Amino acid sequence: MSSMFGQKIKISVFGQSHSDAIGVTVDGLPAGEVIDPAALQAFLARRAPGQGAYSTTRKEADLPEFLSGVLEKDSMLVTCGAPLTAIIRNTNTRPSDYDKFRDCPRPGHADYTAEIRYGGHQDVRGGGHFSGRLTAPLCIAGGICLQILAHRGITVGAHIYSVGDVNDTPYDPLIDSPAILEKTASGFPVLSDGAGKAMLSLIEDCRKNGDSIGGIVECAAIGIPAGIGSPMFDGVENRLAQAIFGIPAVKGVEFGEGFAATKLRGSENNDAYYMDGTTVRTQTNRAGGILGGITSGMPILFRAAFKPTSSIYRQQQTVSLSKGCDTSLTVQGRHDPCIVPRAVPVVE
Amino acid sequence: MSSMFGQKIKISVFGQSHSDAIGVTVDGLPAGEVIDPAALQAFLARRAPGQGAYSTTRKEADLPEFLSGVLEKDSMLVTCGAPLTAIIRNTNTRPSDYDKFRDCPRPGHADYTAEIRYGGHQDVRGGGHFSGRLTAPLCIAGGICLQILAHRGITVGAHIYSVGDVNDTPYDPLIDSPAILEKTASGFPVLSDGAGKAMLSLIEDCRKNGDSIGGIVECAAIGIPAGIGSPMFDGVENRLAQAIFGIPAVKGVEFGEGFAATKLRGSENNDAYYMDGTTVRTQTNRAGGILGGITSGMPILFRAAFKPTSSIYRQQQTVSLSKGCDTSLTVQGRHDPCIVPRAVPVVE
Amino acid sequence: MSSMFGQKIKISVFGQSHSDAIGVTVDGLPAGEVIDPAALQAFLARRAPGQGAYSTTRKEADLPEFLSGVLEKDSMLVTCGAPLTAIIRNTNTRPSDYDKFRDCPRPGHADYTAEIRYGGHQDVRGGGHFSGRLTAPLCIAGGICLQILAHRGITVGAHIYSVGDVNDTPYDPLIDSPAILEKTASGFPVLSDGAGKAMLSLIEDCRKNGDSIGGIVECAAIGIPAGIGSPMFDGVENRLAQAIFGIPAVKGVEFGEGFAATKLRGSENNDAYYMDGTTVRTQTNRAGGILGGITSGMPILFRAAFKPTSSIYRQQQTVSLSKGCDTSLTVQGRHDPCIVPRAVPVVE
Amino acid sequence: MSSMFGQKIKISVFGQSHSDAIGVTVDGLPAGEVIDPAALQAFLARRAPGQGAYSTTRKEADLPEFLSGVLEKDSMLVTCGAPLTAIIRNTNTRPSDYDKFRDCPRPGHADYTAEIRYGGHQDVRGGGHFSGRLTAPLCIAGGICLQILAHRGITVGAHIYSVGDVNDTPYDPLIDSPAILEKTASGFPVLSDGAGKAMLSLIEDCRKNGDSIGGIVECAAIGIPAGIGSPMFDGVENRLAQAIFGIPAVKGVEFGEGFAATKLRGSENNDAYYMDGTTVRTQTNRAGGILGGITSGMPILFRAAFKPTSSIYRQQQTVSLSKGCDTSLTVQGRHDPCIVPRAVPVVE
Repeated sequence: MSSMFGQKIKISVFGQSHSDAIGVTVDGLPAGEVIDPAALQAFLARRAPGQGAYSTTRKEADLPEFLSGVLEKDSMLVTCGAPLTAIIRNTNTRPSDYDKFRDCPRPGHADYTAEIRYGGHQDVRGGGHFSGRLTAPLCIAGGICLQILAHRGITVGAHIYSVGDVNDTPYDPLIDSPAILEKTASGFPVLSDGAGKAMLSLIEDCRKNGDSIGGIVECAAIGIPAGIGSPMFDGVENRLAQAIFGIPAVKGVEFGEGFAATKLRGSENNDAYYMDGTTVRTQTNRAGGILGGITSGMPILFRAAFKPTSSIYRQQQTVSLSKGCDTSLTVQGRHDPCIVPRAVPVVE
Repeated sequence: MSSMFGQKIKISVFGQSHSDAIGVTVDGLPAGEVIDPAALQAFLARRAPGQGAYSTTRKEADLPEFLSGVLEKDSMLVTCGAPLTAIIRNTNTRPSDYDKFRDCPRPGHADYTAEIRYGGHQDVRGGGHFSGRLTAPLCIAGGICLQILAHRGITVGAHIYSVGDVNDTPYDPLIDSPAILEKTASGFPVLSDGAGKAMLSLIEDCRKNGDSIGGIVECAAIGIPAGIGSPMFDGVENRLAQAIFGIPAVKGVEFGEGFAATKLRGSENNDAYYMDGTTVRTQTNRAGGILGGITSGMPILFRAAFKPTSSIYRQQQTVSLSKGCDTSLTVQGRHDPCIVPRAVPVVE
Repeated sequence: MSSMFGQKIKISVFGQSHSDAIGVTVDGLPAGEVIDPAALQAFLARRAPGQGAYSTTRKEADLPEFLSGVLEKDSMLVTCGAPLTAIIRNTNTRPSDYDKFRDCPRPGHADYTAEIRYGGHQDVRGGGHFSGRLTAPLCIAGGICLQILAHRGITVGAHIYSVGDVNDTPYDPLIDSPAILEKTASGFPVLSDGAGKAMLSLIEDCRKNGDSIGGIVECAAIGIPAGIGSPMFDGVENRLAQAIFGIPAVKGVEFGEGFAATKLRGSENNDAYYMDGTTVRTQTNRAGGILGGITSGMPILFRAAFKPTSSIYRQQQTVSLSKGCDTSLTVQGRHDPCIVPRAVPVVE
Repeated sequence: MSSMFGQKIKISVFGQSHSDAIGVTVDGLPAGEVIDPAALQAFLARRAPGQGAYSTTRKEADLPEFLSGVLEKDSMLVTCGAPLTAIIRNTNTRPSDYDKFRDCPRPGHADYTAEIRYGGHQDVRGGGHFSGRLTAPLCIAGGICLQILAHRGITVGAHIYSVGDVNDTPYDPLIDSPAILEKTASGFPVLSDGAGKAMLSLIEDCRKNGDSIGGIVECAAIGIPAGIGSPMFDGVENRLAQAIFGIPAVKGVEFGEGFAATKLRGSENNDAYYMDGTTVRTQTNRAGGILGGITSGMPILFRAAFKPTSSIYRQQQTVSLSKGCDTSLTVQGRHDPCIVPRAVPVVE
């Protein structure tokens, strides 16, 4: 995902898991940008459910319908400067799965906090506005922004950094070729096939046990010029963090070395400058391409921590809000044992 | 720090390390709140430099002068509803320390990114607007908000979670008494005296070697009612993360279990509900008091990762921007070998 | 229209005159509010085209389709706290009417300014995003807010204050009963039937001559408690003015006596206070219910000036942007000779 | 005044009439802009009190002190990209003048609405944050923006359009030379000396009678390129109106023909295009340089209506809030019989 344009581009996401439609309005896109709908569709397909052992069995086409903001031209879409709105119809819904969670909130979900926040009026079907399904419109907005960024020579990629204790090969912080970022645009999004197999095995093990597992997504962007961002509250880290914590299940965000930098000495963590021809670069990139909230021209690198899917097929302790007593519940329905693979394009 | 009120309270920080003054405007505070200036002063003193072996030797009183927004009454300050502005005069400055960094940017600082962002017009003296000194006005705003929150039964505390590899006792995520949060309001802000001594020893070792070290600050807040926050981009995590990444040197933020949750299974990470009398609580608090961006009524818990101080007294590789060639520099001046102890009240 | 809730409720309007759909997202509505769709439909019908001699012959049902944010209950809609999105499909379009205006901008329209702003990529069909048709989604948002305000005892009304030189009876600034505000909710929205007839006659005269005419809409709101709003840039006047200038063709906004107050002496313009039982009221209401940006509890009163419809059926001088020379054009198509009657619910 | 840069430049005004200081923070100014402090001082002097028969006798130097955001260079100030904060110390105050207005609100002032809004905690001295004195920091921000706009070939001017029934010569809407705009930068700000004398005579007459009078300020800007602004809520009219209603005593704003356009037919009001060499211009400028919220390249023209000064030296009816009964008061102190002359640079 790319909220890199800060306040210039405003994104408004709407919809609930089982409302008539979900969608997104993107206001402030430059006019005249060519969007390839086939490439967007391929991007969205990476997030879509029903693709394999590790994902929910709910199948949906997730074809976006563009209501406004683009004009068709030679099978491409061209932005016209007006707010762009795209929606996805909700079909294949089984709302009855969710009836009881209004009274007996599922552990780890927003059932209880939404009940308090909205006084019992929230849409509980499928998690309502809190559903992971809302990442589909985020991906529409993100996929469009990625194409526009690509027009400007910026490439963004993401991969599964880890699932549980299984780690993929991390990105080289000095990465300077789009190839490695594009590698994970199809198939299971890892750099190491061996790590990918081990992850799938771990996820399958969780699924068999009615359990789930968390993981980390790593994202990198290259081609972003130096000098973007502002100090204090409007830095690139601040804006990206605000956006990334908008993805359901994210509980941590770190840039460059992140938490690992707290174990380092300054002499180990500082990135020394050198001249690469006429370009100023750093020999290492522990800052993740951002100093003082402003881009340095080096690759931007960050990681997002996803907690394990809250919906598990095991009996859990909860309460009955109406009766004011303890009880237990077992979640039915279709849920991903690990959302991390599908989260990769969302973060991206 | 407390940006918990979201968009209702707007904070505007201004000043450079060696401008005439630094300060903050806080707009939207409720009228009639009583601020104890002595308590605020004590709070600010925790951040102030010149306190011990681990801090810069620059000494400053950092007495805030209130220009507007409060009325004096019986030696207390009472908010009047108008924007509150407080400033701190800059004195005891040695700006000549910084002359060369415009041409030869210090590794790990914002010298280079600011040069690109502001076309060479930025104030380089003392790091200008990027200086850690700008955390003083943040602390004024935060200290005021903490007093106002306290009037509403909310207590916020923070301690050094770690310096390098030395860990303090972590907060109990189920903490329900203000005492443990108030314990770190004076002295070296740790829960374990032994850990504190080991940290001081490690910091002193870095200082002797002209080096620095990073660390983690952990913050908790109790008494916040359930139902605060909104889904997606306006959640409590999003707003807090945006604010916390505004503190210089922060490279990572995590809530509750955070990155550690990525190693857990759903059955281990979900917080089971139970009735505590008529109150809904959770048996564990791995969510850090936030589900779906909305508070659950459990303690809010987060950690911020600080990289090691960039200013070290060792020769480092850099470039001469004017000559376009590699060179080296050794930073002089006064700098903290570890900013983490002084960062504790800032995060708080 | 009612943007009275300031920053709490965010409205995002999307669509072009001939895109697939137009619509609106309203974020931040309180949960549990009951919306009567029939009453909303009746409200929208007042703005809809094709109602009489004074309006365009384009006929459209303008039935809004709710995509999200509400749950159906006993044939009513209940807000659920999630962003509410409603759309209207565009049908019965004749986009070929507008082809030439990209090269030869129509005087008085945004054709030329949009061409410069969007580099020629804007959607010119029907005025694109600048079309008066975009007031339909504004009315959806406004109609919903009016119902929610009514639940809180607030009544908002509007009438045609004038068309050209024909004036309706103005609102009594001390109005304290909803009846007079509700009177204009059906039929031609004037207080004086005689004035209404004269207006219709003037509009018909313009229509016959291929010309158009401007007018003023006056709006009043009663039941708003004292103490709403903030000084300087966040006052009620500032927020309302920002919203009202968002309605196409509005060129002026005034509150209370407005421009007429500039002819008065302070002794004539000041509203003297008196006690009405235990309530503080003013003997006159030249301030329009707002002092220092904050409501006084007296009726809020403002007027919006609408310029005459730019589309007239007469030859006008323009330029050919491609040829860089002067030329002339005659606008075809369907256009209102006076938009003021249909603008009444929009302002309201 | 110039809020033309919309969201890029954020202005935060603080202070009360009798607080220690008043001031303004301007965030987002481009770095490297040269500000001439002498020219700024001359600009501020136009607003300052104590200049003649028509103004209050309170005398103040109003010399701004720059706390941050600029660097001195050859007796000029150069912006450094960090937030610019300037303050003015409050001296020569007589706060005891205002003690009784907390209980007995002055008609026409914000005394009563502030009492309700802030629960009695507001600063009543001199009108507190609602004082016209707060236009001084607005003028600092505006004067700086005017200089920066001048660097880009944009000239802004304003004059008294009318005081009571006395009208100055209006601006030519096709004005294309800075000379006429600069004419009112010194002396009494009118185009016609005869009108100026008549205005001064009318104001003196009001002063003698312990009364006051309203008026209109007209503002024009030339050199602004076509294509600035956005449709709907982010148009130039919306942003300017929001800012102008932030000036105390403004009750109406109109652009171009404004309210007078409501009397015109479309054939009279539309501005026909023609080619002026390679530039597209309009033969008339009834739109005030703005179509669809976007600038057309023609001069921007607007007027602001100021109500008469609320403070008059006559007995007026009010209430005692503590006793809940009617009473009367006579305002003492120093007040302008007409604020319009001093308002000219504020609007500008």
